Amino acid sequence: MADSRFFSVAGPFTLARLAEISGAELAPGADPAAEFDDVAALDQAGAREVSFLDNRKYLPAFAASKAGAVIIHPDMADRAPAGMALLLSKDPYRAYAKVAQAFYPRPAVEPWVAPTAFIDPAAKVGEGCRIEHGAVVYAGAEVGARCHIGANAVIGAGVVLGDDCLIGANATVQFAVVGRNVNVYPGARIGQDGFGFAMGPQGHLKVPQLGRVIIGDNVEIGANTTIDRGAGPDTVIGSGCMIDNLVQIGHNVQLGRGCVIVAQVGISGSTRLGDFAAAGGQAGFAGHLTIGMGARVAAQAGVVKDVGPGETVGGTPAVPQMEWLRQSAALSKLVRRKG
Amino acid sequence: MADSRFFSVAGPFTLARLAEISGAELAPGADPAAEFDDVAALDQAGAREVSFLDNRKYLPAFAASKAGAVIIHPDMADRAPAGMALLLSKDPYRAYAKVAQAFYPRPAVEPWVAPTAFIDPAAKVGEGCRIEHGAVVYAGAEVGARCHIGANAVIGAGVVLGDDCLIGANATVQFAVVGRNVNVYPGARIGQDGFGFAMGPQGHLKVPQLGRVIIGDNVEIGANTTIDRGAGPDTVIGSGCMIDNLVQIGHNVQLGRGCVIVAQVGISGSTRLGDFAAAGGQAGFAGHLTIGMGARVAAQAGVVKDVGPGETVGGTPAVPQMEWLRQSAALSKLVRRKG
Amino acid sequence: MADSRFFSVAGPFTLARLAEISGAELAPGADPAAEFDDVAALDQAGAREVSFLDNRKYLPAFAASKAGAVIIHPDMADRAPAGMALLLSKDPYRAYAKVAQAFYPRPAVEPWVAPTAFIDPAAKVGEGCRIEHGAVVYAGAEVGARCHIGANAVIGAGVVLGDDCLIGANATVQFAVVGRNVNVYPGARIGQDGFGFAMGPQGHLKVPQLGRVIIGDNVEIGANTTIDRGAGPDTVIGSGCMIDNLVQIGHNVQLGRGCVIVAQVGISGSTRLGDFAAAGGQAGFAGHLTIGMGARVAAQAGVVKDVGPGETVGGTPAVPQMEWLRQSAALSKLVRRKG
Repeated sequence: MADSRFFSVAGPFTLARLAEISGAELAPGADPAAEFDDVAALDQAGAREVSFLDNRKYLPAFAASKAGAVIIHPDMADRAPAGMALLLSKDPYRAYAKVAQAFYPRPAVEPWVAPTAFIDPAAKVGEGCRIEHGAVVYAGAEVGARCHIGANAVIGAGVVLGDDCLIGANATVQFAVVGRNVNVYPGARIGQDGFGFAMGPQGHLKVPQLGRVIIGDNVEIGANTTIDRGAGPDTVIGSGCMIDNLVQIGHNVQLGRGCVIVAQVGISGSTRLGDFAAAGGQAGFAGHLTIGMGARVAAQAGVVKDVGPGETVGGTPAVPQMEWLRQSAALSKLVRRKG
Repeated sequence: MADSRFFSVAGPFTLARLAEISGAELAPGADPAAEFDDVAALDQAGAREVSFLDNRKYLPAFAASKAGAVIIHPDMADRAPAGMALLLSKDPYRAYAKVAQAFYPRPAVEPWVAPTAFIDPAAKVGEGCRIEHGAVVYAGAEVGARCHIGANAVIGAGVVLGDDCLIGANATVQFAVVGRNVNVYPGARIGQDGFGFAMGPQGHLKVPQLGRVIIGDNVEIGANTTIDRGAGPDTVIGSGCMIDNLVQIGHNVQLGRGCVIVAQVGISGSTRLGDFAAAGGQAGFAGHLTIGMGARVAAQAGVVKDVGPGETVGGTPAVPQMEWLRQSAALSKLVRRKG
Repeated sequence: MADSRFFSVAGPFTLARLAEISGAELAPGADPAAEFDDVAALDQAGAREVSFLDNRKYLPAFAASKAGAVIIHPDMADRAPAGMALLLSKDPYRAYAKVAQAFYPRPAVEPWVAPTAFIDPAAKVGEGCRIEHGAVVYAGAEVGARCHIGANAVIGAGVVLGDDCLIGANATVQFAVVGRNVNVYPGARIGQDGFGFAMGPQGHLKVPQLGRVIIGDNVEIGANTTIDRGAGPDTVIGSGCMIDNLVQIGHNVQLGRGCVIVAQVGISGSTRLGDFAAAGGQAGFAGHLTIGMGARVAAQAGVVKDVGPGETVGGTPAVPQMEWLRQSAALSKLVRRKG
C-alpha cells in the first residue's frame, strides 16, 4: 500500500469494474463482485490487492504471489496459484496502468496563487491555475487553464502553455510554445540558447539563436533535462513524446509523435526523429541526421548516420543491431582463441 | 522571421552595410543599396532576407532558396540561383554570426532590483545591474557592472562576478571568481564540493574541498552543467571557453582558452586541457590527464591517457582517430566474413 | 592557503596533535611540538603546512616539495626531501582527510528562518535549523534538527529529513524519507515520477508511480543528480553512499551501503547494487540487474547482465575487465597487422 503521507487511494473497486476500466477480461472462476482496495507489487500484494505480471523475469514472484487479483497475459494464466483471480489482457502493463490510475487519479489542481509568486501584469493566467511559492511568470506569457506552476519555477516572457500543464519546481521555460497536458519535471531547462557559435582562433563568435521550442500535447519532459531553442528554425517535440531525465536536445532537433527518449540521451542539433522512434539510455546522436519512424536505438549507441524506419541499431558507431551483436561475439571469440 | 513574442529585430540594413559588418565581399552584380530586413534559413528566407550556407549538406536547399542574399564561401558561388545576391566569405558561418548579431543585438540590461530579490547588505552590486525575482546574493559577493542575475538564481558568499555577466534563472554560483561577460545558463551549478573522499569499508570520509572555481572572460556555461570547485588547487575555466549543457567538470580540472566542450561530456578531477582543445558530446576523460593544445576528442570517446597537441582521438579506450576508424572497419569486416 | 573569502581555517595544530587526529605515526626525527597552520598541495605547501602523497604520479612533486610535513605511506618514506617531517599512514588519503577536516571543520549551522522562506504551518521543523531565502517546506514535511535548507530549495509534502541534513540551493526533494547527515547538492532532483508508462501506438499511458525514495544516513547526492521515486516498491539509497553529479537513478533501484557512483552514471529501473559496489563515470546499467557486493564497473561500461560480488567489468556490453582489456588489445593488433 502506498505511503499515506504521499498518496491517497480511491476505491474500493469491484473486479467487474476493474475489468471495465482496464479492458481486461475476467478469467473463469473470478468473482465479479469481489472488492479490491489497492494495487501492489506481486511480492507485496494481499487478498484485496491487484497486481500485474509483464516481465517474465518475475514469473516466480507471480507463482508465489498472495495477490487477490493479477492482470496477466492469457498465455501465462496456467501458471497462476490456486484461488487467484485473473484479469486477462494482451497488454497487461497497459491494463495495469489504467487500474492504477483509477486507484491513484492525478489530484485535481486546487486554484491558488501564492503571495510570494510574481505574475507580471502583462501575463495572462487561465482559470483554475495554481502558482506556487516563488514562481515567476513574465510579461506576455499565456498560461492555459488548470496549469500548476511549481515553486520557484520560471516562465519566460511570451511563453505559451496550453491547458493542464504541470511545470515542476525550479524548472525554467523560455522562448517556448507548449501544448496541453505537458508535464515538465523539476529542474528541466527549456528554451535557452542553442550551442551555436562560429569557432575561430580569434575567439568563438556567438550566433544569435532565433528559434523557439514548440512542444505538442501530452508530452513528459524529465527532471533536469535540457532542450535548447532553435537557431532559426524551431526545436520541435511532437505530441505524446516521453523524455526521461538528464536528456540533452540540441537546437533545431525535431522529434515526431510518441518518441521515447531514455535518460541521459543526447541529440545533436538539427537531427530529426520520426514518429515513435525510441532511444535507450545514454545513446548519442550526431547532428543533421534523419532517424526513421519507429526506429530503435540501443542504450549507449553512438548514431553517426541516418537510420531507416523501423530499423534497430546499436554500438558506436551504430550499426544494425544484429551486426553489433555479431561484432561483440566475434570480438569475444577472438580473445578467447588467443587468450 | 523570428517570433516577435520573443525577439525584436533591428535594421533594415543595406547590403553594403552587411558586407561591412560581416567582413564579406559583395559578389559582382549585387546591389550595395538593396535593403534587408532579417536573417532566415535557406528554405524560409525571402527576397528581403539574408541567409548563409556553411554545411554542404544544405547545397540543395541553397540551390532552391528564394533568399535575397546569401553569405557563402567563394568556391560555392557558381551554384547560386539566378538573381541571388552573394556575400562572399572564407568563413561564412562567422560572417553570418556578425550579420545575425546586427539584426538581433543582445538587449541592453535594464537596471532594476526586484523587490523579492535578496541582496545581503554586505554584498556589492555594480552599476546598472538587473536582479530578478527571488534571486539571492550573499554577503561578501561582488557583482560587476551591468550584470543580469536571473530569477531564483543564487550567488554565494564571497563570489566575484566581472562586468556584463548573465546568470541564468535558477543557477547557483559558489566559491567562484568569474571574469567579464560570462554567460551562465539556467540551472548550471558552479562551485559545489568536488567528489573527494577517502574510501574505506568503515565508511567513506569526506575530504574538505578548499579550492575555488576560477572562470575567465567571455565564457559560456550551459544549462544544468556542473563545475565542482577545486580540492586545494582551483578548478580553472579559461577565457573564451564554450561549454554546452549537462557537462560535468570535476575538481582541479583546468581548461585552457577557447576550449569547446559539447553536451554531456565528463572531465574527471585534475585533468588539464590545452587552449582550443575540443571534446565531442558524451566524451569522458579519466582524471589526472594532460590533453594538448588544439587536441580533438570524438563524441563518446573514453580518454584514459594523455593526448598530444593537435591530436584527434576516438573510441573507448581512445586511440588516434584513424586507428579507431580502422578498428571499426576491421571489426565490421570480421563479422561480414564470418556472418 | 585557502581563499579567506570562502574559507576559515582553524589551528594551528602541533604535529603530535595531527598524528593523533589522523591516526598516523610520526616518523623518526619529526618534532612533535612543531606547529602547523594549514594544509596545502605538495607543490604549494610551505614550512608550516601539511600535505600528503597518495597518487604515485605526484612522486616528483613530493621529492621537490617544501612542505613542512607530509602524510605518506611508510613505503615511500625514503623518498622524502631532507628536513621534511613525515606522518606515516597505510591510508594517507584518509589520514589527510582527517587532518583537513580539523583545519576546515564544517561550519555549525546558525539557526535562522529567512523571512522570504515559506514553511507550511502543518510542517515540523526541528531545533537549530537554518532555512534560507525562498526555500519552501510543504505541509506534513518533518525536518530534523540542525538541517540547513538552501535558498530556493523545495521540500515536498510529507518528506522526512533526518537531523543534520544539508539541502543545496535550488534542490527539490519530494516523496522521500531521508536519514541523518545527508548532503543533497544544489539542483539535485529527488522523488519525481519514475519513467513508467505503457507504450503503444495509440499513445503512451502513464503508470502512477506509487513508491518513495528512501535514503540512509551519511549519504551525498551530487549536483543536478536525479533520483526517481519507486513505481510501487521504493527506490533505496543505502547509508554511506557517495553519488556524484548528474547521475540518473531510475525507479525501484536499490543501492546497498557505501556504494560509489561517479558522475553521469545511469542506473535503469529495478537494478540492485550490493554494498560498496562502485561505478565509474558515464557507466550505464540496464534495468532489473543484480550487481554483487563490492563489484566494480569501469567508466563508460554498459552493463547488461548481472555482475557477481567483487567482480570488475568494463566495456559495452560489459565483460570481465581482463577480457575487455584483451578485446581492446586484440582489436588494436588486428588493425596494426592489416594497416
